[in-house]
Amino acid sequence: MSVKPTVLKLGGSEITDKEKPLTPNLQIIERLADEIAQAKVSSLIVVHGGGSFGHHIAKQYKLTEGYSDPSQVVGFSETHRAMTKLNSLVMDSLISHNVNAVVVQPSSCVVMKAGRIQSMEKKPLIRMVDMGLVPVLYGDAVLDSDKGFAILSGDQLVTSLALNFGASRIIMGGDVDGLYTKDPKVNKSARLVDRVTLEELKTQKHDIEGSKATDVTGGMLGKVRELIPAIEQNIQVLLVNATKPLRVYKALRGEEVTGTIIERG
Amino acid sequence: MSVKPTVLKLGGSEITDKEKPLTPNLQIIERLADEIAQAKVSSLIVVHGGGSFGHHIAKQYKLTEGYSDPSQVVGFSETHRAMTKLNSLVMDSLISHNVNAVVVQPSSCVVMKAGRIQSMEKKPLIRMVDMGLVPVLYGDAVLDSDKGFAILSGDQLVTSLALNFGASRIIMGGDVDGLYTKDPKVNKSARLVDRVTLEELKTQKHDIEGSKATDVTGGMLGKVRELIPAIEQNIQVLLVNATKPLRVYKALRGEEVTGTIIERG
Repeated sequence: MSVKPTVLKLGGSEITDKEKPLTPNLQIIERLADEIAQAKVSSLIVVHGGGSFGHHIAKQYKLTEGYSDPSQVVGFSETHRAMTKLNSLVMDSLISHNVNAVVVQPSSCVVMKAGRIQSMEKKPLIRMVDMGLVPVLYGDAVLDSDKGFAILSGDQLVTSLALNFGASRIIMGGDVDGLYTKDPKVNKSARLVDRVTLEELKTQKHDIEGSKATDVTGGMLGKVRELIPAIEQNIQVLLVNATKPLRVYKALRGEEVTGTIIERG
Repeated sequence: MSVKPTVLKLGGSEITDKEKPLTPNLQIIERLADEIAQAKVSSLIVVHGGGSFGHHIAKQYKLTEGYSDPSQVVGFSETHRAMTKLNSLVMDSLISHNVNAVVVQPSSCVVMKAGRIQSMEKKPLIRMVDMGLVPVLYGDAVLDSDKGFAILSGDQLVTSLALNFGASRIIMGGDVDGLYTKDPKVNKSARLVDRVTLEELKTQKHDIEGSKATDVTGGMLGKVRELIPAIEQNIQVLLVNATKPLRVYKALRGEEVTGTIIERG
């Protein structure tokens, strides 16, 4: 790959109403599409989460626990279908803002083993990025060689893509400003951490708080944990609040922005 | 794969109005989804064409000729987007008829070389079929290691899938009853050929006539040519008219049906 790509994650919490099944947040999707278009990043891969499109159906059919009963097969089909519907809204928005976006379906090119990515077909992705296309992937219900099927979180995907394609950095767009010393939603004395090393993170895990909404793939702490293998390879992670205008834009442009930088240190 | 799959092709000519850009034929899509559901085939892969969703945009940006100018990149993105929209309608219809369908995007798992499939990631597909899911693929704009990008026809895909997965048979749902001695749309004396061997086909090519509508991937003769490698491997091909009720159903059930059987002989 000629230019090291930036991997941008748009969390399911912002692009959907996570408490209401199958409800997109179209206003935020449109704004983020515009920010991505305006930032004109030369090499970009976008990953989005499932929010209220993926989690509710996946939970209903216990997909994260793997295959145990034929009645779950329809749940796999339905979870997958719901995720493609959300992705479809994201794609429409990106393309209408003149981003040359192309969806890459994880379930078409990834097989997991016991809930971790076992193999990912990379050839189409490499060519897309080299050609100036913006691949868009998402958390998805995928096949698992041990469990039958599994839920691939957008966060596991972000780390895998960043490692496989030697990303320059990862930008995680969430619904909070970054990492706090306490949960900012319940504790007023919470203070934003603007920069933290992996070492500091590992020794102060109890200080990292985040969203508490339903998420079959883990909350903020889960997200950070999932990113550790990339950070260990010197890929800088920047957590920003995607629900606030221009945060993602500034992050993509490399400008100063409110957020938390996590690096190996 | 435990049971040899049937590969069913639904041509773009029937599921869309091929003369009007981006116009689906929802009535036929719904009926075909119902016939697929009722037939209850134990191992099935579905491929659909692009019809008026793929061809017009692909032609406009000269995608079949490969990459020559950066202005085509948006055309790749748009063609792809149009195809996912058509696929989305097919998926909705199949799932609403209780078919456990899962889309597999060719552009996510196929790379072509000079317009022919060079590599296809098969692991997810194999697992889907084994699990009782019905993978649905379609003609798509994909990356090409020589040409930059190329159009993968549903027909090339059908042959590749049939060969790779050792299909028991291929059912091609078109907009004519099968192969005729002359073009039935312009010649009243045309007679349907109910069974033909590959040898007979090769020596009497001038007798095979079919649809004349715009198709960047070739008309009926092109379709049959594309299937030859599968027929040579003893995979029987059955051409039926998908615009007429119950033809696809009977073909899937293995019942007697008006159509043309092509076999190695």
